[in-house]
Amino acid sequence: MTEFEFLKGLRTRYSLSRTGDDCAVLPFREEADLLLTADMLVENVDFRLEWTTPEFLGHKALAVSLSDIAAMGGTPKWSMLSIGVPDKLWKSDFLDRFYEGWFGLARQYDVELVGGDISQVPSGLVVDSTVGGEVEKGKAFLRSGAKPGDKIFVSGFLGAAAGGLKLLETGTRFSADLSENTLHLLEAQLEPSPELQLANLLEELDIVTSAIDLSDGLSSDLNHICNESGVGAIVKTNLIPMAHGLMNHFPPNECLKMALDGGEDFRLLFTVRSNRVGMMDGLDVTQIGEITSESGRMVLVRDGRRFPLHPHGFKHF
Amino acid sequence: MTEFEFLKGLRTRYSLSRTGDDCAVLPFREEADLLLTADMLVENVDFRLEWTTPEFLGHKALAVSLSDIAAMGGTPKWSMLSIGVPDKLWKSDFLDRFYEGWFGLARQYDVELVGGDISQVPSGLVVDSTVGGEVEKGKAFLRSGAKPGDKIFVSGFLGAAAGGLKLLETGTRFSADLSENTLHLLEAQLEPSPELQLANLLEELDIVTSAIDLSDGLSSDLNHICNESGVGAIVKTNLIPMAHGLMNHFPPNECLKMALDGGEDFRLLFTVRSNRVGMMDGLDVTQIGEITSESGRMVLVRDGRRFPLHPHGFKHF
Repeated sequence: MTEFEFLKGLRTRYSLSRTGDDCAVLPFREEADLLLTADMLVENVDFRLEWTTPEFLGHKALAVSLSDIAAMGGTPKWSMLSIGVPDKLWKSDFLDRFYEGWFGLARQYDVELVGGDISQVPSGLVVDSTVGGEVEKGKAFLRSGAKPGDKIFVSGFLGAAAGGLKLLETGTRFSADLSENTLHLLEAQLEPSPELQLANLLEELDIVTSAIDLSDGLSSDLNHICNESGVGAIVKTNLIPMAHGLMNHFPPNECLKMALDGGEDFRLLFTVRSNRVGMMDGLDVTQIGEITSESGRMVLVRDGRRFPLHPHGFKHF
Repeated sequence: MTEFEFLKGLRTRYSLSRTGDDCAVLPFREEADLLLTADMLVENVDFRLEWTTPEFLGHKALAVSLSDIAAMGGTPKWSMLSIGVPDKLWKSDFLDRFYEGWFGLARQYDVELVGGDISQVPSGLVVDSTVGGEVEKGKAFLRSGAKPGDKIFVSGFLGAAAGGLKLLETGTRFSADLSENTLHLLEAQLEPSPELQLANLLEELDIVTSAIDLSDGLSSDLNHICNESGVGAIVKTNLIPMAHGLMNHFPPNECLKMALDGGEDFRLLFTVRSNRVGMMDGLDVTQIGEITSESGRMVLVRDGRRFPLHPHGFKHF
């Protein structure tokens, strides 16, 4: 049983109506809804201390939750940060540097640390970050609103975080004297930037029909949108914006796989009604395909041929 | 450096104004404030799987956070639950039973599970529970409001959870055929009940000047109130309500130590202006002493003699 299947069972058994999107949406004030998201990062599952710095890790622990707020078109407001610390790190300057990274990102987006917990763990650092945000009432981007004919967009470039991970796995370590291309890939993996500015622009334009952040990988996250919206999708390979520097390090087929299935890019994947596509001009977004009526069926077009696109992204467990 | 000292340093360095109480208090609606609390429970630090059941653990993971809401005089509304699960437990019925215990308590208080995260961990179960609640605007019980002359009250009976822990440490295991006294102590440790009803009553009476839940132990938690309020306290030993069954298992001195320093009773410790003490009649609460003007000084009166009372409760790290 995968994590996804387990959560699906839980949703059904206990009639959980607010789970299944990037954030829970709760009534808040007259003009705003409350957004809530939690992300747990576990040592040697989600990160390795030898591959990153305490500052990067503090940054990333917050960034992954801010990305969920962006995926809903919201603005983050506060965070609760719980951290389980092994004795070895407690006795070092790890926590000071971790919080420095955390607050560096928090200041950029006016996120206030309002609480949390700190606990000893026998081994293995664990960080659980809960972030609360706001979105205009009834205007949160959901996974469930895509309609046949809608155009599919992604922001930025894809595969960088997967490329960075591959470099780390094969021995490259972060260091300021690496080439710009290599640094770009490593930073995408270690110090990702949430798409909050773009999300706010899209929210103001009021044209998004469904959205998700690319945390599991394009094929998996597009599959979430298809499942929740009861639609299918067609994606054109040649339209996918590949991360700079990927081609310098990996063969073309591997680059495509990273862009399609690689997780943790934290770019936005979203759909727009076809007659509104013109409003995307000037934004750092790329149209990569279209929503179809073939429920649950994803198709990849490559060199004029059609292939089934399966969700192959990152799975916990 | 203790957890408490570290958090104090963090509060100063980053000017965190909303930490230091049982919950953060944030503006919410016109008539209500939002309460937020997070608690991390770690295997072999906060619990042992051999000593408890998955259902008890699910119950307790929520109960500790509900107790924080009670300590602020609030009403819980929703929860985000993050859980890091080792492979061995993932492959068993552990999670099904854990959530059964969690939802059993959640239903009692209409707490809605709105999200969270689930992740693999290499070893050692980790649970992080965030609970959001509401309290009448400006009416949250704080640790900082005690004034000299206020009377000190506790709810229920003290030392039961510490007694239960001691029994578990010395080999007793939960089983329905134990004596009622023994079961009472074990249940206090394994399946604690938050004081939400009492908190709501006290909130309506509008007479509490400061409050905290007894999670670290009476001596430590009273010390938190004294520090945050800039006052001292005098406590009379013979007034402390000892848990039923403690005396059947432990010598009198050890019972007193459990009632004074034992953690996790999750009863309320609070102060009331002396001219309002009559309003406590009929409530399951006991007056155990008085707030004094001797800032930071706690005194224990035993057999007519005065002793310094030091915070000796549970410390993480």
